[in-house]
Amino acid sequence: MAMALSRPRLVSLAAGFTDNESLPVQDARELLEGLLSSRDAGPAALQYGTTAGDPTLRQLTALRVRSLDAPTRSSEAYSPERMLITNGSQQMLYMLTEGLCDPGDLVLVEDPTYFVYLGILQSHGVRAKGIRLEQDGLDVGHLEQVLSELKQGGELPRLKLLYLVSYYQNPTSATTRFQKKAKALELLAKYERAAGHPLYLLEDTAYRELRFSGEAVPSALTVKGHAERVIYAGTYSKPFATGVRVGFGLLPEPIFTAAMRIKGNHDFGSSNLLAQLLSRALSSGRYQKHLAQLQQRYAQKAEVMRQGLEEYFPAEAQRWQPQGGLYFWVRLPDDVATGAKSKVFRNALANDVVYVPGELCYADDPARPKPNHEMRLSFGAASEENIRVGIQRLGRVLQQLMKG
Amino acid sequence: MAMALSRPRLVSLAAGFTDNESLPVQDARELLEGLLSSRDAGPAALQYGTTAGDPTLRQLTALRVRSLDAPTRSSEAYSPERMLITNGSQQMLYMLTEGLCDPGDLVLVEDPTYFVYLGILQSHGVRAKGIRLEQDGLDVGHLEQVLSELKQGGELPRLKLLYLVSYYQNPTSATTRFQKKAKALELLAKYERAAGHPLYLLEDTAYRELRFSGEAVPSALTVKGHAERVIYAGTYSKPFATGVRVGFGLLPEPIFTAAMRIKGNHDFGSSNLLAQLLSRALSSGRYQKHLAQLQQRYAQKAEVMRQGLEEYFPAEAQRWQPQGGLYFWVRLPDDVATGAKSKVFRNALANDVVYVPGELCYADDPARPKPNHEMRLSFGAASEENIRVGIQRLGRVLQQLMKG
Repeated sequence: MAMALSRPRLVSLAAGFTDNESLPVQDARELLEGLLSSRDAGPAALQYGTTAGDPTLRQLTALRVRSLDAPTRSSEAYSPERMLITNGSQQMLYMLTEGLCDPGDLVLVEDPTYFVYLGILQSHGVRAKGIRLEQDGLDVGHLEQVLSELKQGGELPRLKLLYLVSYYQNPTSATTRFQKKAKALELLAKYERAAGHPLYLLEDTAYRELRFSGEAVPSALTVKGHAERVIYAGTYSKPFATGVRVGFGLLPEPIFTAAMRIKGNHDFGSSNLLAQLLSRALSSGRYQKHLAQLQQRYAQKAEVMRQGLEEYFPAEAQRWQPQGGLYFWVRLPDDVATGAKSKVFRNALANDVVYVPGELCYADDPARPKPNHEMRLSFGAASEENIRVGIQRLGRVLQQLMKG
Repeated sequence: MAMALSRPRLVSLAAGFTDNESLPVQDARELLEGLLSSRDAGPAALQYGTTAGDPTLRQLTALRVRSLDAPTRSSEAYSPERMLITNGSQQMLYMLTEGLCDPGDLVLVEDPTYFVYLGILQSHGVRAKGIRLEQDGLDVGHLEQVLSELKQGGELPRLKLLYLVSYYQNPTSATTRFQKKAKALELLAKYERAAGHPLYLLEDTAYRELRFSGEAVPSALTVKGHAERVIYAGTYSKPFATGVRVGFGLLPEPIFTAAMRIKGNHDFGSSNLLAQLLSRALSSGRYQKHLAQLQQRYAQKAEVMRQGLEEYFPAEAQRWQPQGGLYFWVRLPDDVATGAKSKVFRNALANDVVYVPGELCYADDPARPKPNHEMRLSFGAASEENIRVGIQRLGRVLQQLMKG
C-alpha cells in the first residue's frame, strides 16, 4: 500500500480487493439515510447490540446462504441460531483457530492456500500441512493418503480441521467440486475415531458470490449426514463493500458456543450500524442488484486480463481460467523463480508492476521445497487499463528473462 | 438482555451503556450523508483501509488525547504513529493481553476492577491480582507491598502489567489522582530490573470524557520520564455512540508493533466507514458538542440516582459520589450478601430490578474471600423515571432484608 501510494506509475496486480468504482456508495448513502431517519431503527443502529450480532442480519444471512444452496431446503444447519456476525470473515477464521486449536496442533490446507490464513495458524503456533489442489479442487486422493499417514504416525490426535477455500479460491481461483467436498467429509468422518475428537471442515466461501461463469456449486452444508462437521464462513466484504468489514459464519455446536465466548472476549459484538446497513441492503434487494453488476464487472475484467495474458505472456506460462473471484494463477516453468527475491519480481518492480509470489501461498513442508515459479495476478483492484498495462509490463519482463 | 426484553417491567441498573435518547442519530445521519456524497471520501469509506486504521482518525485522536492532557504539550507519546484504531477498546485490551502475556503470567488490577477484563485475562490463562482501591484511586502503598512480595516470592518475572481504569472507574467511579499514577509508574520502574523486562501501566480511559464535576486529571502519559511504559487505551463508544464500536490506543514500541501484528491477524483493520464517521464528527466539532450534552445529561441522571439512594436506601449503605462515568458503587454492611445467589439479588429480581453484584468485579485471591456486600448501580441506560423506580424497589428490598 505504502509503496503504491509513493509510486503513482506502479500497477498493483497484487491487491486482493475490489475496485473503488464498483463500491455501492449511492446504495450505502440511501440505506443509511433511511436507517438513521427512522425513529426506532436510528438509535438502535448506534447502540450496543448482542455478541452474536444483529438478529435481523443473522436471519437474513442464514436465509441467503440457504437460498444459495437450495431454496427449498430446510435444515438445522441454516438456523439463524447458528449464525455469528464478525468483523470480516478474518475474525471468524481467527476465532475458530483460537477455539479449536492448541499450539502444536495441525490443520490441513490446500496447497497452495490463502496466505493470510497461514499467518493466523502460525500466530497460534499451529502447523499447516498442504493437500494438493487440482483444477476441480482438493485432491481427495492425496487427502486420504495424508490422513492415513497421520494415523500411522500417531499424529491424528493433533489434527483439528481441514480448511478449504472452496469457491474461486485465493490464490488459484479453483473451485472444489461438490462430490469432492462430500468425499472429504466422508474421509474426515472415517478418521475421527482415530483422532479421538471431531474433525471439522472449515469452508471459507469468501468469493462464492463473485461467480461469473460455470455452474453454482452447493456448499458442504448440503452434504447429507455431515452438516454437524461443517463450519461455513462467509463475508459481505467482497460481494458488497470491503470497508464495511462484516463477515459471518454458520457454526454447529459446540463450535458456536466456543466462538461466542471468544467473540465476547474479543469485542462483545460487531458494530450494529454496519450490520443494519447490510440488513437493509439485503431486504431492499439492493444487495442482489449490486452483486449482479459486480459479477458482470469482474467477468469483464477477467476477460481483459485473459486477453493480456494470451497476448503478452510467454507460451510456456500455464493458467487456469477463473469462473469467479478476483485472480489468475499463472504457472511458469519450474526454473523461473517468482519469489520476492527473484529476478522476475525485482525486474517487475523496476518496471512498475507487482504481483503476489506463489511461494507465499504454500505451507512449509519438509518433504519438498516451496514451489517458487507461480504468481497470483489480481484483476480486482486495478482498472481495465491498468490490467492491460500491468500484464504487458510483466509479460515483457518474463519474455526477456526466459529468453536470456 | 434476553431477560430485560422478556420482562417489560424490569428496570436494569446493571446495563453499562449510555441511553438510546442520548445517541447522536441526527449527527451521524448528516455526517454520513456528507461523507458518502463526497466523490473522493465516499468510495474510500467503503474500501479496505490499513491495519492501523484511518490515518485522519489516527491523527485527530492523537491530537484529542494530547489536548485533554495539555494542549501545548508536544511529546513523542502523542504521535499519530503510535495510534492504533480498534473495534471498541475491548479489542485493544484483548490484543494487548494476547501480545504481552503468556499463560500463567500475572497482571495487577484494581480491587475491584472492570469484570470483563478479568474474563479476558482468564481466557488467556493469565492470573489477576487485586490492588486495593481508595476513593482517590489506586492504593500505591498496597501496590508497593505487593510488588515487594512478588519479588521475594520470585514471582516478579511473571508480572507483565498493571491495569488501571483511571477515570470514573468501572465499577466504583473512583478516579486515580495524578500523583498516584506517577507513583505507580515509579514503583513499576523500580521493580523492572527484578522482573527482567518492562513493566507497563495499561491505562484504560474508557470513561475519561464523561466527566461532569471535579477537576480534569492528566493521563499517565504526562508523567515525566515514564511515557515509554504507558499504554493508553481509549474509546469513542461511551462519549459518542456505543454502536459504532471504535476504540483506540497510543502504544509505545515494541508494543505498537506487536499489537499491529495481532490486529493484522485478527481482522487486518477496522471498518473505514465507522472511522471516517468519527473523523468527521471530530473535525466538524459535532463530537465536542455532543459530548458536552452527554456530560450534562449524565450529571443530571447521577443526581436523580443520588437522590433516590438518599431517600430509599438504608442509612448503613455507603457510597462514593461519582464525578463522571455511569456508576454508583454501594457498599452494604459485611453481612448483607449481594451476589447472584443472595437473597438481595433474588428479591430484587422478583421486584423487577437488577444490578451488577460487586463480587463479580474482584479477582480471585487465596488470601481473602471475595467481598460480597457491594453493588454496581448504573445510571447509564435507564431513564430518569426508571432510575427512581429501580432505586425505590431496590431500597425496599434492602430495608426489608436488613430489618429482618
